[in-house]
Amino acid sequence: MSRGPEEVPAGVLELDRADPLADLRSAFAAPGDGRIYLDGNSLGCLPHAARERVRLAVEREWGEDLIASWGRGWYEAPIRAGEAIAPLVGAAPGQVVVADSTSVNLYKLAAAAAAARPERPKLVTDAMNFPSDVYVLQGVAGAAPGRRLVVAPAHEDGVHPGLDALLAAIDERTALVVLSLVTFKSGYLHDAERLAAHARSVGAWVLWDLSHAVGAVPVALDRWGTELAVGCTYKYLNGGPGAPAFLYVRRDLQDALRSPLEGWFGRREPFAFALDAEPAPGVARFLVGTPPVLSLLAVEAALAPVREAGIERIRAKSVALTELAIALADEHLAPLGFALGTPRDAARRGSHVSLRHPDGWRVNRAMHDAGLVPDFREPDTIRLGLSPLTTSFADVWRAVDRTARIVAQGRHLAYGVERATVT
Amino acid sequence: MSRGPEEVPAGVLELDRADPLADLRSAFAAPGDGRIYLDGNSLGCLPHAARERVRLAVEREWGEDLIASWGRGWYEAPIRAGEAIAPLVGAAPGQVVVADSTSVNLYKLAAAAAAARPERPKLVTDAMNFPSDVYVLQGVAGAAPGRRLVVAPAHEDGVHPGLDALLAAIDERTALVVLSLVTFKSGYLHDAERLAAHARSVGAWVLWDLSHAVGAVPVALDRWGTELAVGCTYKYLNGGPGAPAFLYVRRDLQDALRSPLEGWFGRREPFAFALDAEPAPGVARFLVGTPPVLSLLAVEAALAPVREAGIERIRAKSVALTELAIALADEHLAPLGFALGTPRDAARRGSHVSLRHPDGWRVNRAMHDAGLVPDFREPDTIRLGLSPLTTSFADVWRAVDRTARIVAQGRHLAYGVERATVT
Repeated sequence: MSRGPEEVPAGVLELDRADPLADLRSAFAAPGDGRIYLDGNSLGCLPHAARERVRLAVEREWGEDLIASWGRGWYEAPIRAGEAIAPLVGAAPGQVVVADSTSVNLYKLAAAAAAARPERPKLVTDAMNFPSDVYVLQGVAGAAPGRRLVVAPAHEDGVHPGLDALLAAIDERTALVVLSLVTFKSGYLHDAERLAAHARSVGAWVLWDLSHAVGAVPVALDRWGTELAVGCTYKYLNGGPGAPAFLYVRRDLQDALRSPLEGWFGRREPFAFALDAEPAPGVARFLVGTPPVLSLLAVEAALAPVREAGIERIRAKSVALTELAIALADEHLAPLGFALGTPRDAARRGSHVSLRHPDGWRVNRAMHDAGLVPDFREPDTIRLGLSPLTTSFADVWRAVDRTARIVAQGRHLAYGVERATVT
Repeated sequence: MSRGPEEVPAGVLELDRADPLADLRSAFAAPGDGRIYLDGNSLGCLPHAARERVRLAVEREWGEDLIASWGRGWYEAPIRAGEAIAPLVGAAPGQVVVADSTSVNLYKLAAAAAAARPERPKLVTDAMNFPSDVYVLQGVAGAAPGRRLVVAPAHEDGVHPGLDALLAAIDERTALVVLSLVTFKSGYLHDAERLAAHARSVGAWVLWDLSHAVGAVPVALDRWGTELAVGCTYKYLNGGPGAPAFLYVRRDLQDALRSPLEGWFGRREPFAFALDAEPAPGVARFLVGTPPVLSLLAVEAALAPVREAGIERIRAKSVALTELAIALADEHLAPLGFALGTPRDAARRGSHVSLRHPDGWRVNRAMHDAGLVPDFREPDTIRLGLSPLTTSFADVWRAVDRTARIVAQGRHLAYGVERATVT
């Protein structure tokens, strides 16, 4: 592997020097072997605080204190972590808990909403939503006769939603609209206020999947009047691999909704072990079983740098990073056959930049061998996740520069086209 | 706190010297402050191997290798951990996976079974089952008109099931029987072969909750012809607080059953991100979302000592421990107002011994302050969990001796009767 000299332009270095969040990079472990990590939108970097919290949880709380640790902070952790996430999604206290996976949380809330609104047989999503969400919704739709799922098509550019078709699908027969606020492939950022206004005009509820949004873009669930939301903690929140997800239920709906999946952690008095236990008050009723404590405590500790940075500064840096990536791609990559797979309008863009190339898979492989870590989504999309707390402007410049040299020199042609099982 | 001298009788010390599993205690961290830990049936002790596995997962795999770790063992971990558990529950390969919580797994399987057998409207459990299982089954029963849950009453002694009522409830209209193989309060061990024979005679399926059984008593799912099972990994398997649970689906039923809760980890090609993805072949289709990797890898590593010991030797020691506890309780605690809350027949007993006392809550509190760690279940039950890999015969002797002195001296009367929220 020969990389040649990489002289980062002075203007780019100056962006890093002026970055008010630059110091927070030291709150995270550096990726191994000097790699430039561009996949924080898939798995965020390890915060030192999370490593230390897990060590404490394993060695002292599990190892020495054992069951007593449930009474010393473990039991309340799903609520506590939820309250720590709440300000990041614009939620007043008492509406967010951390539990289960994003898919399980989506199931609980979507099934509860559908059951609460039997006179409205339609669930609506779009083809840009994360496929696992669509599988979950297919299951919810299939559970009651007459209920159905409408998947609105994307715009033919593959980058933007088919907004007219989506809005037309949301009507008086719609119980719930489920969309990813930032879509996983193109990074399109939905106009939440416009969607909410339309949904409200026909009485449809909205459930946002915030997985690619939380910790990267401002979210205002309460202000938007959002009914329900779910989201992932291991992307821009850096909670660790497969860390438990969160869910939001608007306060006035909490007592009216009943999850089809009820377990002891969602009961008012779980340790009374009564067979006819009442649901817990508030959002806690959407908890189910014993939470995975090690992963849960990692999430809670991981939130510190995000909260310290503040979502406004994170968003400002995110826009600047993606603007730089797009400008450099326009200049250096477009002539080599790359097309932008992400909205040009920063107001409609999350924190990753997708680049499409007919040989995208092979380019992606060559990038990995050149010390870059993007990821790849079929059929032709290379995603550059620009996680504001851990990605520098110099990282962006080096990534584009290295990628341009790979393709200009045809180095990607040395790779096969067969896909790996896990990317 | 005054404990006085505790001279363990020579006969008890000899039991420890002759114990073939004694050396395996060194595979686990010792509880802090020299406490005698009698709650391994709630949260098993920390295996050193699990501590080291989590450290590696956090520091190197998450911290340095990041997303590449999915391709280096994380992705297959739910299957791999399931295959490691399979021999402990008498399952041939291809039938067990680790995922979600016990409650979520029970929901997936019970809902799938009920949906597959619409002509049988009845679900049956008993009042000795873990309450969270009953809440889940109430949800499944409530999801379809006409479907109902029958909860057979326990025997009036509170120790044994009401077996006649239970068997009578299982009839030709029963889709599924859900029971805890070892019940959480009295430690009663169901006669799986007898239940299976009766269920088979009327065409009912059986789902065992193995939470208090796996790693403590022999389980033979394949031989019993069991249709479905779920279980916990953080009790006798020592997988760590809230570690993900396992589920078993008999091979010939896997393709016929469809979970109501389908996510990307249960699809044939999750990384194709297709909206119309097929279920994965085999038991993997019952996976849902991204698993909590740190907790999952802890489970996998924790299994080593259990597998090394072998379930036959574990069961032999478990019976010897519980026999000793009962003999000592008969001699020293019965005169002080304790009643045995556990079957006397070892063949019908799991690995904990329940002692009932009218002042059980206060005795339990005094025991904790005397360096013993049992737990308490309403209204009057003190559970002594005797985890064969970490409990010694001397521990049992000391626990009974100390408890007898507490009650004989009336030390428990210094405590209040108000309950803590979390015990």
